[in-house]
Amino acid sequence: MQTLLLNSDDVEENAQMSAIIEAVEQAFGAFERGNTQMPAKSYIDLPQYNGDFRSMPAYLKVRGSDAPSSQSGSQGGSDAGGDWDAAGLKWVNVHPDNPAEHDLPTVLGTMIYSDPETAAPLAIMDGTALTMKRTGAAAAVATDYLAVPDATSLGLVGAGVQSYTQLDAISEIRPIEEVIVSDLDDARTQRFIDTYDDEFDVRAGSISEAGHCDILSTVTPVRDPVVTPEDVGDQTHINAIGADAEGKHELADDLLQAATIVIDDHEQCTHSGEINVPYHEGTLTDADIYGEIGELVVGAKDGRTDETGVTVFDSTGLAIQDVAAAHVVYENARDRDNGTPFGLIDTTVQ
Amino acid sequence: MQTLLLNSDDVEENAQMSAIIEAVEQAFGAFERGNTQMPAKSYIDLPQYNGDFRSMPAYLKVRGSDAPSSQSGSQGGSDAGGDWDAAGLKWVNVHPDNPAEHDLPTVLGTMIYSDPETAAPLAIMDGTALTMKRTGAAAAVATDYLAVPDATSLGLVGAGVQSYTQLDAISEIRPIEEVIVSDLDDARTQRFIDTYDDEFDVRAGSISEAGHCDILSTVTPVRDPVVTPEDVGDQTHINAIGADAEGKHELADDLLQAATIVIDDHEQCTHSGEINVPYHEGTLTDADIYGEIGELVVGAKDGRTDETGVTVFDSTGLAIQDVAAAHVVYENARDRDNGTPFGLIDTTVQ
Repeated sequence: MQTLLLNSDDVEENAQMSAIIEAVEQAFGAFERGNTQMPAKSYIDLPQYNGDFRSMPAYLKVRGSDAPSSQSGSQGGSDAGGDWDAAGLKWVNVHPDNPAEHDLPTVLGTMIYSDPETAAPLAIMDGTALTMKRTGAAAAVATDYLAVPDATSLGLVGAGVQSYTQLDAISEIRPIEEVIVSDLDDARTQRFIDTYDDEFDVRAGSISEAGHCDILSTVTPVRDPVVTPEDVGDQTHINAIGADAEGKHELADDLLQAATIVIDDHEQCTHSGEINVPYHEGTLTDADIYGEIGELVVGAKDGRTDETGVTVFDSTGLAIQDVAAAHVVYENARDRDNGTPFGLIDTTVQ
Repeated sequence: MQTLLLNSDDVEENAQMSAIIEAVEQAFGAFERGNTQMPAKSYIDLPQYNGDFRSMPAYLKVRGSDAPSSQSGSQGGSDAGGDWDAAGLKWVNVHPDNPAEHDLPTVLGTMIYSDPETAAPLAIMDGTALTMKRTGAAAAVATDYLAVPDATSLGLVGAGVQSYTQLDAISEIRPIEEVIVSDLDDARTQRFIDTYDDEFDVRAGSISEAGHCDILSTVTPVRDPVVTPEDVGDQTHINAIGADAEGKHELADDLLQAATIVIDDHEQCTHSGEINVPYHEGTLTDADIYGEIGELVVGAKDGRTDETGVTVFDSTGLAIQDVAAAHVVYENARDRDNGTPFGLIDTTVQ
């Protein structure tokens, strides 16, 4: 049996953002409908290395007849209209000292993508690139339901690796023209501007300038909020991406309290998402949470209406997003003969 | 960054059984000492495919000064005497219809072996071959503490894939001469005999003949016990390997009740090990469990004494065994330039 190895370039090449967005939206819908299995993330904490490992297994079943009707729902993807299911596991970590001490990224993911029917490992792929893609895609799905329909500007607080896929994904579902990026690191800011200068009207700006765009994505690892209510517009939709551990949050409590909050998963968001700090302090309660993104996808709850003010999507990242994104990458790579087949397991021994 | 790919042949070639036994023994000791992290296995149940997935993450730290003093403890392994730690995850399944319907093994494992300090995926290896090796090794460790010192005969109930590594491993720690194998499938029995005919006095026999050897390993998937008290000798040590799910057991209740029972892990054994059925029926209680294998390894409890009768090792298989075995395979493969280096993750993106 051959397992398809897909490195960073292969993932990049086969992760068409429109198809990833569609698959992630379908995954959110399947989650809401109860058509997924997603055991809680398992953590291995290694304080001696200032790091941790997380294992994220998941299974999801998507019915083509459930296909969402949003703008992103019809742009290709080899499964358009069909049923599919998929299983896999991402083994990932957070080691913040990696860049400074080991010349390695903080996050290193490995994804095993498996056939649910036989458990055959169909592909092993770079889970780092995949994580960025599916995180951007989740923000795009939320933006589609929560941003003003005629949004054309995107603000970014933070110009690190995650900021790129925010723009890549969100520009798939709204015709973004203007981009304002805010980061304390000038080199990082300039690198971002240089990357997108040809494609967008992109410039550096303050947090408040970024926050007064139609859409704002925050992608920083801060523990003290950096965005206040005064920093955002009346109808800005915010994708809060950065918080990924207890104690992290990017948005001020009073901003959250006044906003319409949509989460990806209650357990994960209250444990380590944007809302985890005020939630545990009691400043924010379940009554302040409008709903889960899956409820918007299946139509159980409305997205933005004319009356909606500031909205916040608390994105922690679900294992089903990884599996859905891996599904797109694998199917495309296989169809295009990309990747490196490798005989990992000798299946003649039974 | 390069990740070393190790297929079935690479695992076979670099999994010297004596070193695997030593590492698994150290892992049991580290577990007892509290130097491991092993979140509970996560299950994904797929009744529609009559299968399941399990994710098994683990970390362990071994101090060379803790090295066990047993017979198997001194035979090589590149870490002899040194400290080491290791992390990894096995993604594995049980799909019983695979052989008949898909010409695939029931169990297909993929192991990711990671550097705990940076989380870099050092190796990805066939977890199927690895599982058999570490399972044999666990039986060998238990046999070392629980079989009569002058054991020379090994019985096997079941001649499937797991029976081979039972003999391979147990013959490392006792000078096995006579082997009796009992299986309803004559072709399977003959294949086993042909494999070992040159090396051992090996023949087919009844369950009772196998059970009257000094050591018995049971490696069947039965749900109704096949070994009774009359089938075993007065001091036979039994490695009960087959039970890996609720409802499975190979040994009769009265055999278990009268035996000295050693388990690998209380949670796993009572959930899905040999003792799970009588334990849940109340026929067997915690008072009937002598101890965990780690307690024997660190010397907290004695192994066999002159007064000990029949002993049973209930082996469910721990994630730390996989990581320990993967450590041996990776270190050996790296030292010998085996395997296939592959640039899975682009680590220049930080």
